[in-house]
Amino acid sequence: MKVGFIGLGRMGQAIAGNILSGGHELVVYNRTRSKADDLEQKGARVADSVGDACKGRDVVFTMLTDDAALHEVLAGGLLENLPKGAIHAPMGTHSVAALGEVEAKHKEAGQVLVAIPVLGRPDAAAAAQLGLVAGGPADAIAKLEPILKIVGRRTFDAGRNPAGASAVKLANNMVLGCAIEAMAEGFALTRKFGVEPQVFNDVLTEGLFSAPSYKAYGAIIVKQSYDQVGFTTRLGLKDANLALAAGQAASVPLPSLNVYRDSLLDAVAHGEGDMDWAVMARVKARASGIE
Amino acid sequence: MKVGFIGLGRMGQAIAGNILSGGHELVVYNRTRSKADDLEQKGARVADSVGDACKGRDVVFTMLTDDAALHEVLAGGLLENLPKGAIHAPMGTHSVAALGEVEAKHKEAGQVLVAIPVLGRPDAAAAAQLGLVAGGPADAIAKLEPILKIVGRRTFDAGRNPAGASAVKLANNMVLGCAIEAMAEGFALTRKFGVEPQVFNDVLTEGLFSAPSYKAYGAIIVKQSYDQVGFTTRLGLKDANLALAAGQAASVPLPSLNVYRDSLLDAVAHGEGDMDWAVMARVKARASGIE
Amino acid sequence: MKVGFIGLGRMGQAIAGNILSGGHELVVYNRTRSKADDLEQKGARVADSVGDACKGRDVVFTMLTDDAALHEVLAGGLLENLPKGAIHAPMGTHSVAALGEVEAKHKEAGQVLVAIPVLGRPDAAAAAQLGLVAGGPADAIAKLEPILKIVGRRTFDAGRNPAGASAVKLANNMVLGCAIEAMAEGFALTRKFGVEPQVFNDVLTEGLFSAPSYKAYGAIIVKQSYDQVGFTTRLGLKDANLALAAGQAASVPLPSLNVYRDSLLDAVAHGEGDMDWAVMARVKARASGIE
Amino acid sequence: MKVGFIGLGRMGQAIAGNILSGGHELVVYNRTRSKADDLEQKGARVADSVGDACKGRDVVFTMLTDDAALHEVLAGGLLENLPKGAIHAPMGTHSVAALGEVEAKHKEAGQVLVAIPVLGRPDAAAAAQLGLVAGGPADAIAKLEPILKIVGRRTFDAGRNPAGASAVKLANNMVLGCAIEAMAEGFALTRKFGVEPQVFNDVLTEGLFSAPSYKAYGAIIVKQSYDQVGFTTRLGLKDANLALAAGQAASVPLPSLNVYRDSLLDAVAHGEGDMDWAVMARVKARASGIE
Repeated sequence: MKVGFIGLGRMGQAIAGNILSGGHELVVYNRTRSKADDLEQKGARVADSVGDACKGRDVVFTMLTDDAALHEVLAGGLLENLPKGAIHAPMGTHSVAALGEVEAKHKEAGQVLVAIPVLGRPDAAAAAQLGLVAGGPADAIAKLEPILKIVGRRTFDAGRNPAGASAVKLANNMVLGCAIEAMAEGFALTRKFGVEPQVFNDVLTEGLFSAPSYKAYGAIIVKQSYDQVGFTTRLGLKDANLALAAGQAASVPLPSLNVYRDSLLDAVAHGEGDMDWAVMARVKARASGIE
Repeated sequence: MKVGFIGLGRMGQAIAGNILSGGHELVVYNRTRSKADDLEQKGARVADSVGDACKGRDVVFTMLTDDAALHEVLAGGLLENLPKGAIHAPMGTHSVAALGEVEAKHKEAGQVLVAIPVLGRPDAAAAAQLGLVAGGPADAIAKLEPILKIVGRRTFDAGRNPAGASAVKLANNMVLGCAIEAMAEGFALTRKFGVEPQVFNDVLTEGLFSAPSYKAYGAIIVKQSYDQVGFTTRLGLKDANLALAAGQAASVPLPSLNVYRDSLLDAVAHGEGDMDWAVMARVKARASGIE
Repeated sequence: MKVGFIGLGRMGQAIAGNILSGGHELVVYNRTRSKADDLEQKGARVADSVGDACKGRDVVFTMLTDDAALHEVLAGGLLENLPKGAIHAPMGTHSVAALGEVEAKHKEAGQVLVAIPVLGRPDAAAAAQLGLVAGGPADAIAKLEPILKIVGRRTFDAGRNPAGASAVKLANNMVLGCAIEAMAEGFALTRKFGVEPQVFNDVLTEGLFSAPSYKAYGAIIVKQSYDQVGFTTRLGLKDANLALAAGQAASVPLPSLNVYRDSLLDAVAHGEGDMDWAVMARVKARASGIE
Repeated sequence: MKVGFIGLGRMGQAIAGNILSGGHELVVYNRTRSKADDLEQKGARVADSVGDACKGRDVVFTMLTDDAALHEVLAGGLLENLPKGAIHAPMGTHSVAALGEVEAKHKEAGQVLVAIPVLGRPDAAAAAQLGLVAGGPADAIAKLEPILKIVGRRTFDAGRNPAGASAVKLANNMVLGCAIEAMAEGFALTRKFGVEPQVFNDVLTEGLFSAPSYKAYGAIIVKQSYDQVGFTTRLGLKDANLALAAGQAASVPLPSLNVYRDSLLDAVAHGEGDMDWAVMARVKARASGIE
């Protein structure tokens, strides 16, 4: 297939690299051109504009940091140059509102939107082990499957509404935020009764919660290593706000989300915005008068 | 060792059976005598009173449904008949307040309290795969270890405060309640965007949340099989109240607990008190206007 | 009427004094006898036991600090000595559960329970300006009305269930706790934008919230005079727990109560348990990184 | 003073009318011209564009429904035509973010921003009884005072940051939302114990909460007259979101706001979005299984 790829941060480069390795004809674009160098060496053509990366393509993937960047790329050549019938597949984490607007514009232009937010970090992307959540027309998703197969470990079908894919991604993050908050409250409670954090962590992660999420975040909390950042408080807050906005759009109260969002705000208010969002545990300790 | 065991519900029978198989001299007691029949056949002596089950014992385990039963057994012969220096090890889920009172009484009587709440259900007890959370004097726990080894898969040391063991048990349950609530909110949100519950469940349980808790409860929610009860809403509420009381005793705010506790109250208010507590997902659907 | 009065704290003395002034034949009892001296001088007979204060009375009022004291007085002579058909009217703030138990015992003994928790502080009691919330049989309340008239400014009929009177009293306190929490959040928010607390206070109390509650607590928050205690954090927490228990008994989620209850716990955790409960404003400032 | 006024809804017309009566030279503008007819008859000049309403003015007031309208008016002639040193005073309820952006633009253009959100409804505006919350340079506020005096009952000085005025307005609304939620929970709780809603309402509004807000909303809840709409659920939600965004901008957790915001979402999910926001009481009744 003729593939375009716009947005070459760490995630974008890794995914585009896999598409290339899979034998697809790839044109890439990034505002800072140098980030395309590696892919160029491996055989990708580097476009000199957004439009150039879209012309004649069967599909264009975008991996952008936020809604503003998505709107900018759309207006900056994507909408105008993507062929009729071709697919635009945004892989970033976008608001359900933005996807709704983008979907409407593509429909008007005779193009197709398939939202495909990804689950996993850059290392998973490099290893082609991403989870892919696809929302959009079934035939379009089917058409993309050969590429998705070489990019991720599995494609989850989120239904015919692109915004549904975003809802899944955001809800998955929300469940994680809630888990960290719950652990944080549990650590505060047990510490107050003299329990070693490591012990409570063992109880959780060797039993009901023997999952990667609890293991990773439990370890951070026990070590209080909030400075070794996997995902910052600010990013957690950004995603929480996107989930909140999705809840607003669909009239769904999300009380557990509110709780951990408040912890993140408390953290930011205490200068912990750039620490790992597991710092919620420190917020809960603070509210309990620990330390 | 000379062991007493009081409280022969399903859990109690399974644990006492393992102690017996391990070669310890066992005296058992249960208010309804018939529940002791199996153990008697296997070689246990059946005491005719609480006091009789405590006299001359090195340790007496109790597995009782609540604080009231614990206080009753204590006043009904345990305190009076347990030898000085012997250990009382309650394995039920008790309030931190009750354990504090019981501890004080044992101290006064020259006896030792080691709280050992268990993690796992009757099948795990039968298979000697319980998690054991022990709180109390280190030497007393060490003394019990030969028995604990044949009863569970691992003993977690919750520290020198018996109430700490209870805090760990309650916090573990709380983290579970929070996880179900978070899933419930996630299912409501994604359903509103047309996502199949099974898909959201797959995303959770194949990724960050590939743990027994999420798998078990995700499956119930997808099937809406709230009538096949593992753990009722009312029991969830009872444990939530114990955790809340622990938070009160130690001045620890538990906002996530409040959220799922409110869901459980909503469920009870709708006649769902005897359903599995995963019915929280129905509560969240209801709040979102689904169905 | 022949009236008994048990419990002569500041509230009790003031109310009993008004009953006496109203021309009723009064027998009083208090564990610490000296608190009855003033009333004795004014013409009350001082009983030498709970039972003595109940014998031959048409009605016995109790003004006790908590459920434990109520149960103690009941078992310590009240139940045994109050004549059949006579009324027991507890005026303290009791749990709905305790009132239910007490009601059942009185029924069995052929006596009548009318719960009459009071609204107002000792100065209002002295001025006969209390609000009285009465729950129980209509004819019994009517029979008491001549006395209630000289004790308070108005009797509110909470219905035929004594626990209903308690629910009203607790809900009234809950609405107050929520108001303080809301103000506290509002002060934190506006302070962060450079607004003088006095100004936000003026906006509230000269407009939509020109009520005694907002004026009193707004002034405390502006002055940060949490050491001049009207009602302590601990007492606020005690009443919050009673309201929570009422919600539990009736299956009513109370999310706003949870929020301010957590603020009170946070305050206690920071050594502010004996300050005025308006210290919630400091808790919210702390969570926002102010100071 | 030479005054411009843009945005002639019910509030705008009433305020502009008072400015005119006060003897100021007034130019008005509204997208739908007919709304300016009354003011024209009374002596105002009707501008034919936003720019025309700003040229040569000492101050231009805007009373617009939301941030989008504000940005539109700014870009559509206000910024370009308002004289250097002149004042722009937006009176609508705007986000702190929007006010920050607008302030920056005015600074660059040598103009002055004074945010003056108003407290009160159209009838209060007509009677010149609005509360005015002013945020911006002290000298600019002083300069406007002669006009503010004839428009409202009092000007509250929210400090030098225009966003502070918005924070006060939003926090005032937030405190109101919290009060309604608290009442709603209280009504649900007391109803479950058989208490007549009118009685609980009397207790609140004759005692601690004898304020316009509680009286107005208590009456609506007692009558369940949610169809006689003063302020819709949707508008309540819009303002709650603005307060939430202010909390986000300033890192202030607002847990009580979250609670009533969730009630509003629940209401919208049940088709109650266009009812009076006191319908929160129905949401709480629903969660408690009432009706």
